[in-house]
Amino acid sequence: MDFNPSVNSLTQPLVKYLIDNAVSLRIGVEQLKNGCTIIDAGIKVPGGIEAGRIVAEICMGGLGKVSISQRAYTENWPLSVNVYSSSPVLSCLGSQYAGWSLSHEKYYALGSGPARAMATKLKEGKKEPVEELYKELSYQDAGDTATLVIENDAVPPVEIVEKVAAACNIKPSKLTIIVTPTSSLAGCVQVVSRVLEVAMHKAHALHFPLENIIDGSGSAPICPPHPKFVKAMGRTNDAILFAGQVHLFVKGADEDAHNLANNLPSSTSKDYGKPFADIFKQYEYDFFKIDAMLFSPASVIVTAVESGNSFRAGKLDNALLDLSFGA
Amino acid sequence: MDFNPSVNSLTQPLVKYLIDNAVSLRIGVEQLKNGCTIIDAGIKVPGGIEAGRIVAEICMGGLGKVSISQRAYTENWPLSVNVYSSSPVLSCLGSQYAGWSLSHEKYYALGSGPARAMATKLKEGKKEPVEELYKELSYQDAGDTATLVIENDAVPPVEIVEKVAAACNIKPSKLTIIVTPTSSLAGCVQVVSRVLEVAMHKAHALHFPLENIIDGSGSAPICPPHPKFVKAMGRTNDAILFAGQVHLFVKGADEDAHNLANNLPSSTSKDYGKPFADIFKQYEYDFFKIDAMLFSPASVIVTAVESGNSFRAGKLDNALLDLSFGA
Amino acid sequence: MDFNPSVNSLTQPLVKYLIDNAVSLRIGVEQLKNGCTIIDAGIKVPGGIEAGRIVAEICMGGLGKVSISQRAYTENWPLSVNVYSSSPVLSCLGSQYAGWSLSHEKYYALGSGPARAMATKLKEGKKEPVEELYKELSYQDAGDTATLVIENDAVPPVEIVEKVAAACNIKPSKLTIIVTPTSSLAGCVQVVSRVLEVAMHKAHALHFPLENIIDGSGSAPICPPHPKFVKAMGRTNDAILFAGQVHLFVKGADEDAHNLANNLPSSTSKDYGKPFADIFKQYEYDFFKIDAMLFSPASVIVTAVESGNSFRAGKLDNALLDLSFGA
Repeated sequence: MDFNPSVNSLTQPLVKYLIDNAVSLRIGVEQLKNGCTIIDAGIKVPGGIEAGRIVAEICMGGLGKVSISQRAYTENWPLSVNVYSSSPVLSCLGSQYAGWSLSHEKYYALGSGPARAMATKLKEGKKEPVEELYKELSYQDAGDTATLVIENDAVPPVEIVEKVAAACNIKPSKLTIIVTPTSSLAGCVQVVSRVLEVAMHKAHALHFPLENIIDGSGSAPICPPHPKFVKAMGRTNDAILFAGQVHLFVKGADEDAHNLANNLPSSTSKDYGKPFADIFKQYEYDFFKIDAMLFSPASVIVTAVESGNSFRAGKLDNALLDLSFGA
Repeated sequence: MDFNPSVNSLTQPLVKYLIDNAVSLRIGVEQLKNGCTIIDAGIKVPGGIEAGRIVAEICMGGLGKVSISQRAYTENWPLSVNVYSSSPVLSCLGSQYAGWSLSHEKYYALGSGPARAMATKLKEGKKEPVEELYKELSYQDAGDTATLVIENDAVPPVEIVEKVAAACNIKPSKLTIIVTPTSSLAGCVQVVSRVLEVAMHKAHALHFPLENIIDGSGSAPICPPHPKFVKAMGRTNDAILFAGQVHLFVKGADEDAHNLANNLPSSTSKDYGKPFADIFKQYEYDFFKIDAMLFSPASVIVTAVESGNSFRAGKLDNALLDLSFGA
Repeated sequence: MDFNPSVNSLTQPLVKYLIDNAVSLRIGVEQLKNGCTIIDAGIKVPGGIEAGRIVAEICMGGLGKVSISQRAYTENWPLSVNVYSSSPVLSCLGSQYAGWSLSHEKYYALGSGPARAMATKLKEGKKEPVEELYKELSYQDAGDTATLVIENDAVPPVEIVEKVAAACNIKPSKLTIIVTPTSSLAGCVQVVSRVLEVAMHKAHALHFPLENIIDGSGSAPICPPHPKFVKAMGRTNDAILFAGQVHLFVKGADEDAHNLANNLPSSTSKDYGKPFADIFKQYEYDFFKIDAMLFSPASVIVTAVESGNSFRAGKLDNALLDLSFGA
């Protein structure tokens, strides 16, 4: 059976909800001259937790549930997201992951959300996905509407809008771009809601076969926003690195599940041990010098469904969380 | 941009849901001769947790989310509400706060919910809001339907119904009044769901500028109902005073956020330290003798979004909660 | 007033949702030659947590809410369900309880869900409910569509399908049967979501008058699936026996509420103390030799709403939970 729905189609009702409830959600909606709809979730508007929650579900391609509650897990930071998906590989990697590198002059952003799955480029005369990842996922979305999410303090220039629309093979009027600044509450919520995605992405980096991941759930505290970009981004990462909690359900051998659990937590990285903003500074703000293995939840459970055995590793670190969030 | 939707319009789908699902929710719906719809959520009917949850979202003017879960935060009382709003000032103060004093002969009640925002009175020939608070909020709702929530053991007399309709400038047939007794489960749920509102109201009383509160979330245990009014009311208050937990996000100076955090918890009140029913008795059941600063959550975090700093004060008191709830 | 809605009618929108979103939920939908719709939630398809959550709400006759979150209550197993119902007796006993014994040749299954409430048989020329329980509930559903849930590794033979349709007095084309294997994730979720139902059922077995139970809520950890049936079933039971948490609200005398609380927890059973799979083996896999009083939550609170007093008994047992789930 084919369990690959169109993430862009599934997302449309959520996008419509955002637009229809823009006043209640305190977000901005404007239409560019080329027809593209830009949703501002925190640049010139307050936005907020609920706006961020809906953007997170949009990022997950309509295949994920994100809920907000006050939890007792993290000592000083009860406000948290709970995330799970009915189709985690497609939802988290095929949609939510911020994998589309977009730039024009000084504007640089990573695009996430379902539009990624529609984006193609020409290579040696043939159309192929903009991101290599989609070849591995064997997934290519198509349709007449697309939605992209950008984490940035500014609306993208029209050149990027047109580039995205062209790559998705749609008119700009069929494209919606949602922008959430890292320093906004909506931004914090939508980024920490990546707790499950981050685990999926590291599992992939560890060469765990994605088709063996059958389900998953995660949670993380919502970080307090910070006005400075580096600190703000640091906190969204640290929410996951120090207090993200994930449970994956996988097929395959116990040994593979065990290895995955052992290697998945953030604490396995050589760069683990201080707030992300400090690590970033230490590497002179060169993102690519940071150990890629750092980006993962604090604590994981991997259940091997073919044996019924579960493997756990990592742990919550309240002290580091306080250091990052500013206790 | 104007982020002031009509709380009465936003509430209509929830009111319709209550009416359409009255049998499942075990609530009563009747139409008075003047056309007003009265919803009984616990007087002659069982009502219950879910009815209370929906009434709480109605109180919040359709701008709040209330969810029910079993939490590990309060030792002996896991059943809890989680509350947040996409627009906390308007939702909590412009709608949820029980600020409309209504009386006729021996019937006395405080009205809450979105109808408050439509109510006007004539003063020196000019229309002005019934409650002073709306002048500060610069908000006035208008429309052709209104919904009021009353915490009482009895349906209001027709004189009050007509007074409310007239103040809202609508026909009684366009008015819905929902009545939840304090001693009912629905009553308990809708009152403890005021945990965020109580924090907002005290912030206002402490002269913190409301326009600086950009978002918030809260939680509190659902108190076990008590058949006697004073005990029942006491428990709904104590749920918040001893175990309410709130996180506010504010603009402005750190000093102001710090002061707000320090002054917000219930424990700052001179009357803090015993179950509310005992305090009420001690003041010979004169509500206005009680220190107004008592009405607030047990524990608060205030994040100053312009600096990224968070301030916390207060704490959960399981022993007092047990004393009030009857361990 | 009559608070007995049609559980089959209330369930129809949820069944439609499952079918419409089969691809996203990774479940199978097929139509038999006789027109009956069979939904496979984990036999030939992956299914998952969200599919199980919706099946659980279908089991509850559209009168229950089931949500998924990561909780801090159970030390090693945060992933949990929260369950409550707007009408717990009807929802849990009148629909969710697996009370309809169905067999044909080697196929044996217990049917749960709303179809049970429509099923009748002829006895001495008179129609009466298939299950005695419905006489006590004074409830009989009728209508033109029905939904049955079966916990099994295989789709039922056509003879059972026709028997169910005939008992419900509908054409097979108006019947939906949902099948969840015990060893599937959806199966685990829908079974542990019976935490409140199990408490209601034991209350009934303890002769507590059902009409006195006015509301309730519960939670339990989602067990990791196990490929072997006995272990899988053992874990779904143990999730409730060792870590199920329930709060009931009842009318009547304190003494009765107190007795109910004291007798309700699983630890009151003589068979309590080891994983269910071990007990089952000890009794040579004869289900009916197991003490019926074992099937109940670990920890309960019973609030007597006429006095306002609460009674609690039982406790979470993390060590036994680890033993069962495989720490």
